[in-house]
Amino acid sequence: MTTESPESHEYPVTARTTFKRLAYRGTYDRAVVHAILDEGLVCHVAFDVDGRPALIPTAYARQGERLLLHGSPGNRMLRALAAGTEACVCVTLLDGIVLARSAFHHSVNYRCVVIYGRAVEVTDPAEKREALRAVVEHVAPGRFEDVRAPTDDEVTMTKVIALPIVEASAKVRTGPPLDDEPDYALSMWAGILPVRSTFAAPEPCPRLDPRTPVPGHVSGYRRPGA
Amino acid sequence: MTTESPESHEYPVTARTTFKRLAYRGTYDRAVVHAILDEGLVCHVAFDVDGRPALIPTAYARQGERLLLHGSPGNRMLRALAAGTEACVCVTLLDGIVLARSAFHHSVNYRCVVIYGRAVEVTDPAEKREALRAVVEHVAPGRFEDVRAPTDDEVTMTKVIALPIVEASAKVRTGPPLDDEPDYALSMWAGILPVRSTFAAPEPCPRLDPRTPVPGHVSGYRRPGA
Repeated sequence: MTTESPESHEYPVTARTTFKRLAYRGTYDRAVVHAILDEGLVCHVAFDVDGRPALIPTAYARQGERLLLHGSPGNRMLRALAAGTEACVCVTLLDGIVLARSAFHHSVNYRCVVIYGRAVEVTDPAEKREALRAVVEHVAPGRFEDVRAPTDDEVTMTKVIALPIVEASAKVRTGPPLDDEPDYALSMWAGILPVRSTFAAPEPCPRLDPRTPVPGHVSGYRRPGA
Repeated sequence: MTTESPESHEYPVTARTTFKRLAYRGTYDRAVVHAILDEGLVCHVAFDVDGRPALIPTAYARQGERLLLHGSPGNRMLRALAAGTEACVCVTLLDGIVLARSAFHHSVNYRCVVIYGRAVEVTDPAEKREALRAVVEHVAPGRFEDVRAPTDDEVTMTKVIALPIVEASAKVRTGPPLDDEPDYALSMWAGILPVRSTFAAPEPCPRLDPRTPVPGHVSGYRRPGA
């Protein structure tokens, strides 16, 4: 692993994060990695169980240069990661369907981040509480102050782990289809069908007093960067 | 592994697919698994490299009871899977943000499928061609017939692998927040913020003749089940 000053705007390149293919789509730029992590809602976590890969989707939050995951103390992924198992985490944003003139050049526009590493468990109650706040605020910015805060028991009953964002990279495809030169003369439509994550009208809990106003953090919900 | 008749409407339960937590959200129902796979656009593939997990997002298609992946022959994930490496594939659909009255009970509504297993490479040119058709049709239903078909060289230049959908399960959360009973008396808004994948106005390729009509499979694009 190369060493870089903490002020570097790029993550250090390692054997695992060296781009093997389509390297021009890859970047180690911290700002790009952060923006993707901050916009995403769900990550996928790969880890080995008995020497074979397993994969779990879960919520998360970025807290500076670490990725926070949380859940039940019985969650086997969190237990494995807390025990120091190697993990690989990916956040993928799908931006468009690339409709080329040839079947061969069909593709998707996307932004994804891959992080490799070993997590550590967060055990200090105050630090855990702050992590739980970060996860709620990641999924629903502005909500934490409006809801009933975690009790000490709830903090105890939640396992929190933190994966350092050190061995990290992003890959991004943007732009129109790239067809073979002769195919541009063909007559079929070609272009991008943009894909968006959108948020429909909020559905109140059936047990909610119907006079309860919808707060601005729900009615005006948007992802950062979107 | 248990054995079941091919007519069973459920996948056989194995050690790896036995639900460890929140089992009531899990199902082995083929129809549920198929519907999630057919609606999704991108899967995540976990596989080991030098004994450590790696994770890659990619397009796919379901073809009966197998999941097709494709790409460059140099793609290390496809090469590993073609060589018989154990894989774990996940397709996740995010349906809503669950805004509870307590921070602790915040959650997301989702549907996900996890498939464990070993893939085989598809090498027969006719079968590969059919697989490439399936992948284009998965991402853009109705498009394959409109575009320039793969040449023999393009078929040769594409690696296709098929993962049997045998060791598979789905997990689904739906419905309103589930708060602790005393918290229902609290006054803040609670409910679901539905998340939808939507498709914006198609963006024509800059090199497209502007008189080219937008075909129905683009203007009327929708995912199956959505």
